[in-house]
Amino acid sequence: MIPQGQKLELSGERFVVDYVLKVSAEEALMMATNLCYEQTVEFPADLVPEGDIKEKIVGRIERIEEVDESHQKVSISFAVELTGFQFVQFLNVIFGNCSLFPGVRIVGLDLPEILLKHFKGPRFGREGLRELFAAEGRPLITTAIKPQGMSAGELADQTSQFALGGIDIIKDDHGLCDQPFSPFYERVKLCSEAVNEANAKTGFKSIYMPSISGPSDKILDWAHYAKEAGAGGLMLSAGLVGWDMLKRIAEDDSLGLPLMSHPSFLGSYVTSPDNGFSHGVLYGTLARMAGADLSVYPNYGGRFSFSKDECTEIARATAAELGGLNDCFPAPGGGMTLDRIPEIVDFYGGEVALLVGGGLHRGEGTLTESCLELRKLVSKAAG
Amino acid sequence: MIPQGQKLELSGERFVVDYVLKVSAEEALMMATNLCYEQTVEFPADLVPEGDIKEKIVGRIERIEEVDESHQKVSISFAVELTGFQFVQFLNVIFGNCSLFPGVRIVGLDLPEILLKHFKGPRFGREGLRELFAAEGRPLITTAIKPQGMSAGELADQTSQFALGGIDIIKDDHGLCDQPFSPFYERVKLCSEAVNEANAKTGFKSIYMPSISGPSDKILDWAHYAKEAGAGGLMLSAGLVGWDMLKRIAEDDSLGLPLMSHPSFLGSYVTSPDNGFSHGVLYGTLARMAGADLSVYPNYGGRFSFSKDECTEIARATAAELGGLNDCFPAPGGGMTLDRIPEIVDFYGGEVALLVGGGLHRGEGTLTESCLELRKLVSKAAG
Repeated sequence: MIPQGQKLELSGERFVVDYVLKVSAEEALMMATNLCYEQTVEFPADLVPEGDIKEKIVGRIERIEEVDESHQKVSISFAVELTGFQFVQFLNVIFGNCSLFPGVRIVGLDLPEILLKHFKGPRFGREGLRELFAAEGRPLITTAIKPQGMSAGELADQTSQFALGGIDIIKDDHGLCDQPFSPFYERVKLCSEAVNEANAKTGFKSIYMPSISGPSDKILDWAHYAKEAGAGGLMLSAGLVGWDMLKRIAEDDSLGLPLMSHPSFLGSYVTSPDNGFSHGVLYGTLARMAGADLSVYPNYGGRFSFSKDECTEIARATAAELGGLNDCFPAPGGGMTLDRIPEIVDFYGGEVALLVGGGLHRGEGTLTESCLELRKLVSKAAG
Repeated sequence: MIPQGQKLELSGERFVVDYVLKVSAEEALMMATNLCYEQTVEFPADLVPEGDIKEKIVGRIERIEEVDESHQKVSISFAVELTGFQFVQFLNVIFGNCSLFPGVRIVGLDLPEILLKHFKGPRFGREGLRELFAAEGRPLITTAIKPQGMSAGELADQTSQFALGGIDIIKDDHGLCDQPFSPFYERVKLCSEAVNEANAKTGFKSIYMPSISGPSDKILDWAHYAKEAGAGGLMLSAGLVGWDMLKRIAEDDSLGLPLMSHPSFLGSYVTSPDNGFSHGVLYGTLARMAGADLSVYPNYGGRFSFSKDECTEIARATAAELGGLNDCFPAPGGGMTLDRIPEIVDFYGGEVALLVGGGLHRGEGTLTESCLELRKLVSKAAG
């Protein structure tokens, strides 16, 4: 038996996590109770003495609803103090050890102001980005420089062609990092210059957005270097560098740049329908808590497997009420050919940042001509 | 069509990733080819011109073998230069975008010296830890202070009881972070002192190992504070803070402390049998590349779902040849009661760091008495 523990003076404020558990209705209460203990005291229930720890620290089952015969939705609330008001520990509370249980999926979060006020959220949001790119009333247009293996100079040439064609955000392919054939500093310098020179000619407001998912001790340096070099935004992969690193970059006022989250290495949290996170929570809610202004994910109908419903869920979560945090743009990509643009713009009701990659290279004219055609297509579709 | 690209002078050295794909034998070649492009140039195959990029940058299928009717094992090699010789980008190459494909699981890595020499690996390894704890010929014994909600002083008392009982590693429960009821700095100071005072009495060489999975901008500070306060090791959760953060802490000579990796938030990479990583690669190979001296995971037969085979696979991977990197200790935990100790020590052939949590609290005597009993059990089981 452990000692009673101190008297706990907590705020009484709690946040709620909706889990879908792959269990029968009969098993739901036991499994939910396990989660309440596993995610908090990590102690056998019978060893936790009556008192403040049992009452205030152990998670509390708020609701159990049947989803279907083998899935139950269980809402569990936790004292906000368990998180230490920090993102890493928040993730630890909601999905730390229980990530190791098969059949546990987070499908919803209800977070009070007292917790969310520790998150600044997206710095620009949709409105801020539209202003930045003079893109009122139309979707944003983004693309990636590629393929890996080209030199920094070649990639800068490509960046220039995209910028001359009026692409809003020209990002690094997420596989570009600091390889010998295209070193980070050289690439970022040349591509930033290329975009800014093109803007001076065209009047467009394109930005270059390097991927800064490098070694943990270089990310900050890379971010500041990119800003000084004239890059207009930054891209990070939360799966690779940790969610809190995005928050750190997003909230750094000395940077103050739009941030894009990339789904690399994050797929395992959604690919199994019975484990991980719902698409909306992962690519919408968590991305906004991390401060992403744009959240990249694979679009339906491309070479990945996301369904229309899952994409709708993401799009909704990027704009749902979240304690006053800015919304962000869903940025679907993957197999986005030009002929699909009208349908996709319509699907997202115009509230989208289209990520068109290989599709731009299939035009009959130059890359810049393809980009200008895409701009027209998008403006027409947004009509 | 993209330009031909620069002439690429690469070393010619490649590393091999074994993927198990959930496809039929007929579909294997197409899916494997997709992976070769997706993980590198991220460009439609027909748009990549003949030349160095296609020959040297695009992944190369080395072997395809049938596992069963619906699973094929595909070995793909990549030029080492794609990684930039950095851990984050290595993970990006092997499982970045393809983490988003259902039915892609990494089951093996074959890594050449030219890549591995950029990883220092576990600083202590099994031999170093055995020396540190004067634990020749027996398993290490580890436990966690808990439950969350207790004050720093109460947790330090518990730490003291564990240390008086000769537990080798007394770690923070992974849910302890920087909560108001047990602030990080206070807890680390008191618990470190408690262990060192106990050691002075007993002659044991116990260490306190705090969890430093905090905000990304505090992890380094926390690590250094812990060392100064007298903590003897550090624990991090790669799923929460990113794998490279472990490497950074492990390789920091100004710290020089044993590192434990914790599986929190990492479960989704293993829970689906058709996605993510095999248990051996995740908790063995990657943990060692990150420099973990001990790799925690849920043991078979406890409240989690790992099988005996999966635990065997982890144990093997913690000691398999890996370019001269030190081995590390498998540290199975979860539902480890004292009566199971002989069986578990036997299962791991004595090469194990037992993580006994709640089980120690079930004894009839004091916590210290339980610990001493556990030590006896372990020594006896180790023969």
